[in-house]
Amino acid sequence: MRIELNGERRDLRAVWFEDGIVKLIDQRKLPAKFEIFEAKTTEEVAYAIKDMVVRGAPAIGITAAYGMAQAALQGRDIDDAFEILRKTRPTAHDLFFALELMRDSIKRGAEPTTTAEKYANDIIGRCEKIGEHGAALIKDGYRILTHCNAGALAVGDWGTATAPLRKAHRDGKKIFVWVDETRPRLQGARLTAWEMVQEGIEHAIIADNAAGYFMRKGEIDMVIVGADRITSNGDVANKIGTYEKAVVAKENGIPFYVAAPISTFDFSLNSGDDIPIEERSEEEVLFCRECRISPKESRARNPAFDVTPAKYITGIITELGVFKPEEVWKLKK
Amino acid sequence: MRIELNGERRDLRAVWFEDGIVKLIDQRKLPAKFEIFEAKTTEEVAYAIKDMVVRGAPAIGITAAYGMAQAALQGRDIDDAFEILRKTRPTAHDLFFALELMRDSIKRGAEPTTTAEKYANDIIGRCEKIGEHGAALIKDGYRILTHCNAGALAVGDWGTATAPLRKAHRDGKKIFVWVDETRPRLQGARLTAWEMVQEGIEHAIIADNAAGYFMRKGEIDMVIVGADRITSNGDVANKIGTYEKAVVAKENGIPFYVAAPISTFDFSLNSGDDIPIEERSEEEVLFCRECRISPKESRARNPAFDVTPAKYITGIITELGVFKPEEVWKLKK
Repeated sequence: MRIELNGERRDLRAVWFEDGIVKLIDQRKLPAKFEIFEAKTTEEVAYAIKDMVVRGAPAIGITAAYGMAQAALQGRDIDDAFEILRKTRPTAHDLFFALELMRDSIKRGAEPTTTAEKYANDIIGRCEKIGEHGAALIKDGYRILTHCNAGALAVGDWGTATAPLRKAHRDGKKIFVWVDETRPRLQGARLTAWEMVQEGIEHAIIADNAAGYFMRKGEIDMVIVGADRITSNGDVANKIGTYEKAVVAKENGIPFYVAAPISTFDFSLNSGDDIPIEERSEEEVLFCRECRISPKESRARNPAFDVTPAKYITGIITELGVFKPEEVWKLKK
Repeated sequence: MRIELNGERRDLRAVWFEDGIVKLIDQRKLPAKFEIFEAKTTEEVAYAIKDMVVRGAPAIGITAAYGMAQAALQGRDIDDAFEILRKTRPTAHDLFFALELMRDSIKRGAEPTTTAEKYANDIIGRCEKIGEHGAALIKDGYRILTHCNAGALAVGDWGTATAPLRKAHRDGKKIFVWVDETRPRLQGARLTAWEMVQEGIEHAIIADNAAGYFMRKGEIDMVIVGADRITSNGDVANKIGTYEKAVVAKENGIPFYVAAPISTFDFSLNSGDDIPIEERSEEEVLFCRECRISPKESRARNPAFDVTPAKYITGIITELGVFKPEEVWKLKK
């Protein structure tokens, strides 16, 4: 992705592998600070995933791939590294997809760095394809809602949900993006908005509560979100709140698209109800960034994802084209 | 409402009139600080309403009534005070209801303080009735979602949406309250949670995004919210996000109730689409309390309310009983 850093335009990915170190844009600190986090051991890579230095299903997968390469280069036990990285987060399918691919390749004798780089480039190439297929759905003048950050920061480059936005914008279409702030971790307000600024796309941040208002007023033409896992029946696990947006979009006749590469599809599960949903620390809800926003005596619940049943989804934008949710099973190799 | 202050139980209202001063619990500072705001002039009363020292339709009405009494006692021009207070906030109907009642009474020669106190006590008495009618709908063991704060802080005492919760709890029913945090101003996390703590009602705060998740999981038995204005056709304006909750509740077969006294009904409007919706400062979205959560270059949109069409509403709990939205017109005197 193109970013402006200290007045200079640079091309940077959310995560890369350099001198045996997994380097990541520290997404916990954006947009206030731009810092690079360096993970030098499997444990540090696991921490980066768990503490959300990096987040977003495809970027988690890429980070895990680099983590496995690093472990192999350091002569660590591959199954051991696999286990440490596998236990970081439960919902995103790309994590398990990348770990299994790396473990099997390394065991077959593949060169670790080349394999991980190939995985990263492959995912990013797929996202560019997602951008092309998705941009074809976007008409000039469209006002598009997105939830959370399924952007370049979540993938490495183009993004998934943002790939069609970037492509449409670069193709010269006039678009406007509604950015759900996405509590509790504010990936929309912090990260998607930051990406929109970098790319020069016109946008407005809204409280998650306001999406329905603008849908009902006819000010949203389309919704595009990412995914953490997609099951054979076309159900989609994605950031908490996605389900509400999908239901309200359907109620208002607004097309609701999910953008994801095939690495996000879990063909071993028949229904979204089988996807394990991570429940994160209640502190994320009781606080907003550094501010406590609640009484000390109150408790909170904090599911990080929800499942949107296939019936609310207009189409799934993949690197292979746009599919109806009921066609997903056909993509199984 | 009963609150604990410096280890002592006290009975306090959100707003009261003492020695010619309109005194208000400063709701901008809760739950971190408990402070009393003193409004000594019409301009200060207007500021308290506009800057949301006090909020919630019935409490705004009571504040305006005291403001009018204060203006009359200070020998100010009543029409002038009426205009200053009328222009503070556009959506809540109670504001206009209270202002007109006070202006007309004062012009007819009524004693200002007595009239304002009668108005306040009357509203609070009505809320207690709302509590009784609403509690009859709550079964033992119910898990109830509420959005924003339609509590004692929004009314003066019992609250509207919280009145049935308080009553059911005091009647010995075991209930659990899901508290939507309610961005951007966090009235749920800050105020409703604080009231639940004071009342000793078991509760959990959730990100607004998570309500649909718990609805779909079958962990919410009922939704009760307040209202800022209700039109003749049963449409309801309430805090931004109410519409989304109502749509998702209906989709999941969960009863959705609105609690409000008759002062919130605007029989002059036939449809919710005619209600003016206040759009507040974008800073409320770009920041969360004191923390900036967004890029400096980003803009935001911030509608404070939305309209929930009657078809999503199971019933409206009033001081006169529970009515279907299509029966609202019958309540017109």
